[in-house]
Amino acid sequence: MTPDVTPGPAPAPKRSRGRPAGVRAGTAETRERILAAARTEFADRGYDKTSMRSIAKAAGVDPALVHHYFGTKEQTFGAAIELTFAPAFAGPDAVFGAPEGIGERVARFMLGIWESTPTREPILAVLRSAFTNESAAEVFRSMLTRRILARVAGELDVPEPELRVQLAAAQLLGVAVLRHVLKVEPIASADFDDVVAMIAPTLQGYLTAGGA
Amino acid sequence: MTPDVTPGPAPAPKRSRGRPAGVRAGTAETRERILAAARTEFADRGYDKTSMRSIAKAAGVDPALVHHYFGTKEQTFGAAIELTFAPAFAGPDAVFGAPEGIGERVARFMLGIWESTPTREPILAVLRSAFTNESAAEVFRSMLTRRILARVAGELDVPEPELRVQLAAAQLLGVAVLRHVLKVEPIASADFDDVVAMIAPTLQGYLTAGGA
Repeated sequence: MTPDVTPGPAPAPKRSRGRPAGVRAGTAETRERILAAARTEFADRGYDKTSMRSIAKAAGVDPALVHHYFGTKEQTFGAAIELTFAPAFAGPDAVFGAPEGIGERVARFMLGIWESTPTREPILAVLRSAFTNESAAEVFRSMLTRRILARVAGELDVPEPELRVQLAAAQLLGVAVLRHVLKVEPIASADFDDVVAMIAPTLQGYLTAGGA
Repeated sequence: MTPDVTPGPAPAPKRSRGRPAGVRAGTAETRERILAAARTEFADRGYDKTSMRSIAKAAGVDPALVHHYFGTKEQTFGAAIELTFAPAFAGPDAVFGAPEGIGERVARFMLGIWESTPTREPILAVLRSAFTNESAAEVFRSMLTRRILARVAGELDVPEPELRVQLAAAQLLGVAVLRHVLKVEPIASADFDDVVAMIAPTLQGYLTAGGA
């Protein structure tokens, strides 16, 4: 059931009929342009309303070229959200080190990504798609698990590391949603450092099994 | 900015032109039928795509009658989600009592609502609307704050009770989303009692400031 979200291989591109003049296939620049268009389309229209055709149109290329570089719509979504979650992928590396203070470091790093509009909005767009479409949820789940949760869990010396990492992730996600999506007061306007300080002990507890 | 989500008053209804024959206005039954149609429309189509006209059509009444009973689209949404969140409104009453074990009682009650499809799906539908439309988010925020969060906060003898209740709510919401929306494993398939037991100390800490 889990779709392969790895972007499709890109062998030497074959000339696709109907490609608009002036668009050169097979260059990294073309691939990047399609990817940027895909990211914008999925973010603006949501997963359901985005099609390979609409991505191609936005990028000024033939739809066959989108398929050529990225495969299915699910795979294209996977490639687009890789870019969106790039800041979060640095999380596991950035927060490790001594168990002391890991809760505070994780809270600061992960909530920090939500504090700035340019990094928050694309993540929110992906969450919206995952809330409304099961294929999008599947792609997001696979990436979240593989690239963030499993990597953090692999570093922990606690019982049930996957479950504990997910409880910590749940606390972070819930805070982000109440603060930035539902904008419930007082948490929406609370000082960032205060919020970090208040949830740090919770994360510390999950990630160290109460130790450190 | 906060819309009044209280359903509009229902004085003696005036006869509305164009109302289909056989539909009697002014009865509690008609009001209930419109409300049920509104709930279904908002749940199935989302806030953006639902109109007073589509609700009226689903209920088999004139659109003027929907306005008459419920006011604006925002107010109609408010009335519809009152019904959706009725199970959760019982939460504050159900979970109070001795501070000992409050974390476990809150976790069991609130996560329990998400465990059964008939209570989970309408809540999910409201969350989807709140994620995609600011008016829907505003109505939901107002109701969540007034009917659940503020009532719990009012019972607590801790510093910053509102913020603490929201951190607890964030933990619960995050767990519900990872378990039931994103369906990340292992938390999606974990035993309900195990999940309750693992987050109970977190909620206990927030709601009692580490005491009890």
